[in-house]
Amino acid sequence: MLIIGEKLNSAIPSVREAIKNKDIAFVQDLARRQAEGGAGFIDVNTAQGNDEAEDMEWMVRAVQEVVDVPLCIDTTEPRVAKRALQIHRGKAMLNSISMEKSRLEGMLPLIKEYGCSVIALTMDDNGIPKTAEERIRIAGELVEVLNKEKIDLNEVYVDPLVLPLAVGNDNAVIFFNCLAEIKKKYGVKTVSGLSNVSHQMPKRKLINRYFLTICMSYGMDAAIMDSTDRKLTSAVITTELLLNKDRFSRNYLKAYRNDALED
Amino acid sequence: MLIIGEKLNSAIPSVREAIKNKDIAFVQDLARRQAEGGAGFIDVNTAQGNDEAEDMEWMVRAVQEVVDVPLCIDTTEPRVAKRALQIHRGKAMLNSISMEKSRLEGMLPLIKEYGCSVIALTMDDNGIPKTAEERIRIAGELVEVLNKEKIDLNEVYVDPLVLPLAVGNDNAVIFFNCLAEIKKKYGVKTVSGLSNVSHQMPKRKLINRYFLTICMSYGMDAAIMDSTDRKLTSAVITTELLLNKDRFSRNYLKAYRNDALED
Repeated sequence: MLIIGEKLNSAIPSVREAIKNKDIAFVQDLARRQAEGGAGFIDVNTAQGNDEAEDMEWMVRAVQEVVDVPLCIDTTEPRVAKRALQIHRGKAMLNSISMEKSRLEGMLPLIKEYGCSVIALTMDDNGIPKTAEERIRIAGELVEVLNKEKIDLNEVYVDPLVLPLAVGNDNAVIFFNCLAEIKKKYGVKTVSGLSNVSHQMPKRKLINRYFLTICMSYGMDAAIMDSTDRKLTSAVITTELLLNKDRFSRNYLKAYRNDALED
Repeated sequence: MLIIGEKLNSAIPSVREAIKNKDIAFVQDLARRQAEGGAGFIDVNTAQGNDEAEDMEWMVRAVQEVVDVPLCIDTTEPRVAKRALQIHRGKAMLNSISMEKSRLEGMLPLIKEYGCSVIALTMDDNGIPKTAEERIRIAGELVEVLNKEKIDLNEVYVDPLVLPLAVGNDNAVIFFNCLAEIKKKYGVKTVSGLSNVSHQMPKRKLINRYFLTICMSYGMDAAIMDSTDRKLTSAVITTELLLNKDRFSRNYLKAYRNDALED
């Protein structure tokens, strides 16, 4: 499973502070540690600052100075995405598009021009639908649009947007069904963040971790998560072992030898 | 999910010693702690001692003095099972039958006479089949035999017998498919032990715990496990929350308040 490191996000106070102070050491250290923890992409978000585009350019340059892992450009603003994609070395990922009209229209040309991977959210101008059926329908609309634009569907990660268990006891189950159905119907990859599901619940990390394992058993291809959390990366490695995605148990045994498996 | 407490097993040296010395305090303490940890049945096994039948009778009496939880009579010997069922108060479970001819013939009359629940293993006189298809076939044969004897299929827990990952990387996946298919085809309940899967691997508890969560996401109804292991019972509680089997998150929140959730 592809891990997208979530830590360089301006919604986190310490990161917001580092962006404000242009604290390059802080940002580069966090990038390095996420890469070491197994991130295949590093998400970068500068939405909560003074100048999102300016900060994004600074962040992309800062991170790419120290890691080879490509970046996941996390913004709702096409002009910010464009500025990041112009300077990004290698093949980036864009986080995200949805069926929200203005965002989609602004982002599509960028995806084509820069040939990046993309996270596609199953929401539209009416928000996130409550039912699995509606989210699967929006996934279909997204796939249709992307197909028409000749964007490679192998590079598309659909996020069916899990809602908190605290709001509805069936929200995780609805999400699992979305994962299975979207993959079956459209053959695209799927992705999720891990923290929404446990919103307003105690012991959130416990919920997030078992949520991840169940998502993986439903075939999820990528997760936006904290790759510096040893218990969480141990869950990924162990779950891949169980799902026969770790040939000769190589990864699991290597992690064990490196003392990286945390029980 | 039904938890069957696994600790009172003569394969464990300290338990074997306690049986030998008729250390009733040891046995009763372990029974109490398993019940407190959420066991719905407590497995009792005295196979590795001087006199299995004699020891079994002693164990059943000792445990039933202190807990109300019914027992899971764990023996391959019909005469031992009979002795236990004769004195057991309440509705017991029998662990186990299989399509091994002599064992099946000896056990069937007891299941009918004492109306107990039963664990049915998908193996026959040729051993445990390697493929999912063969194990599903044996499950079908067991269901047919039990049906013919008018045994209530709601009381039957089929164990498709997971083989170690160390022997074959696909053994857990084969098992998950068995769980789904046996439930779909025959409508019976399913059960598993947790330790076979991680045989000869390091950090076994990590593997066992995520194995349990994936099994539960495949609809497994019961597990033979250590209900005194807080991390493991926390996995059960958290997974039930995620699978919408914990109305109003009551169990999860209660466990949290009781400081019983271990991350």
